[in-house]
Amino acid sequence: MSLTVVGSIAFDAVKTPFGEREKMLGGSAVHFALAASFFTDVRVVGPVGEDFGSDQLAVLEGRGVATDDIERIEGGETFFWRGHYEHDMNVAHTDETQLNVFEHFEPKLSEASRASEVLFLGNIQPDLQRQVRAEATGACFAALDSMNLWIDIARDSLLAAIGEIDCLLLNDAELRMLTGKPNLALAAEAVMELGPSIVVAKRGEYGAALFTADDTFAIPALPLTEVRDPTGAGDSFAGGFLGYLDGAGAGEGAASISGEELRRAMAFGSTMASFNVQDFGTERVSCLSRDEIDARVGEFKALTHFEHS
Amino acid sequence: MSLTVVGSIAFDAVKTPFGEREKMLGGSAVHFALAASFFTDVRVVGPVGEDFGSDQLAVLEGRGVATDDIERIEGGETFFWRGHYEHDMNVAHTDETQLNVFEHFEPKLSEASRASEVLFLGNIQPDLQRQVRAEATGACFAALDSMNLWIDIARDSLLAAIGEIDCLLLNDAELRMLTGKPNLALAAEAVMELGPSIVVAKRGEYGAALFTADDTFAIPALPLTEVRDPTGAGDSFAGGFLGYLDGAGAGEGAASISGEELRRAMAFGSTMASFNVQDFGTERVSCLSRDEIDARVGEFKALTHFEHS
Repeated sequence: MSLTVVGSIAFDAVKTPFGEREKMLGGSAVHFALAASFFTDVRVVGPVGEDFGSDQLAVLEGRGVATDDIERIEGGETFFWRGHYEHDMNVAHTDETQLNVFEHFEPKLSEASRASEVLFLGNIQPDLQRQVRAEATGACFAALDSMNLWIDIARDSLLAAIGEIDCLLLNDAELRMLTGKPNLALAAEAVMELGPSIVVAKRGEYGAALFTADDTFAIPALPLTEVRDPTGAGDSFAGGFLGYLDGAGAGEGAASISGEELRRAMAFGSTMASFNVQDFGTERVSCLSRDEIDARVGEFKALTHFEHS
Repeated sequence: MSLTVVGSIAFDAVKTPFGEREKMLGGSAVHFALAASFFTDVRVVGPVGEDFGSDQLAVLEGRGVATDDIERIEGGETFFWRGHYEHDMNVAHTDETQLNVFEHFEPKLSEASRASEVLFLGNIQPDLQRQVRAEATGACFAALDSMNLWIDIARDSLLAAIGEIDCLLLNDAELRMLTGKPNLALAAEAVMELGPSIVVAKRGEYGAALFTADDTFAIPALPLTEVRDPTGAGDSFAGGFLGYLDGAGAGEGAASISGEELRRAMAFGSTMASFNVQDFGTERVSCLSRDEIDARVGEFKALTHFEHS
């Protein structure tokens, strides 16, 4: 089993009511890969600039993530995002975005990345997502994330990309925007008509919901007293979710995944997101242990359990 | 066991993308009482005008709700609310409010209402809530709902009222506003320092969360494909929650309620809210059966269940 992720690798500058960092490792592919690394072998595909150093690579490699498909662009600078959060940490305010090497990113998959059984298409331009999907011939299970920008300016491309994957992960507001259906259950049904058999609605501090043709599952987020930086929570969720699924055999194809496994994957995804937000950037997830993860999945179970006599 | 509710009795005019009603029975005490009536004996205290007729009383009495403390004000008109919902049904837009007989409401509790073991103070002016709490000498368990208006204009009264009850139910945004704590878990802790040992955060389409000194529980809402009118969902939740608790012996005092019972009460509250939103006003809840309710609690359990091996 092996999981390839294509997406952004970034330096983030983040300020929240609980502190700030001027230049820390971030990006959707990074948060995803670190979270997934606890469950399976992970390969990262994405571009960096000359400013991306061995310290950053060491964070990924320290978790066993394969970095050979991280492409270093000579003379280039790494994607940079600056943002801040007010007391309502559900809303990220973007102050600056420098696409840098990401602007002309042409994903190049090595033999090994093409052979991965599971593929995650992080939030990049939908035509690039389609191109990667087509190249990743070994992937029997592909999932995709996107954002409001692409729904706005590249809707047809995005719909085509969604038609070629097994699992769509989006924020609930984006699911509504994409389908024009304000009702989330109906929005999920509309997505399933486009192709994916699995739809995950990410709901920030409210958790996440899962829709398939014959099941609906919802899991609240853990009400944490300590939330320091939500950046990357959605990608950490996706990494835990797909990493767990790959470990559970999703590489055999979507039809091979049981509803029970999907529900557990939602709990592992939620768990990785909950750790992510407890500290800045990758600081918490990169130094986690599998025992801590399992214990927190147990906390999620305790959070939602009740007996119906 | 017996549960008294003090709150508004109203005529509502509501328009949603799925239909409209010009003058239907509503109000916090009505929605609460109907939901609670499936679990315990309920008494309603509140004012109506001469326009409130036997048809409206029959809806309550049809569910066995005691209406002797509904006070008919001669020459008065019943509280009237007109509102509408856009496609985002989480936000109620108020178009018109006529307080009418509610403007000078002086709650009068009969002997029987004062003797109820459980008391629910619906969303009315906090000094009135305190007055009712003081009169309801039989109540060993009292819960309170409020709204942003009172946090704004009667904050000290509201804090005093909260100091005299066992359980506070508020929307999560209102809990943050009341305590000045954007983190929900910390907001709940701050409320517990004011007096209540049980704090329930209502979260609309995202469900509800429960906080006590030694437990945290969260339950998502059921993702329904059919949501016709959310008016009264929060009061239906409170009715199911407190009605179930009264039936389970909450009248012995907050300390007598087990964590397991509180969690089940959250599921029954969520269940009653889920029925409420499926049709206009009281139309769905007033014709429910207990079997339907139990089956839906089972759906909530299925919605959130996962095995952690």
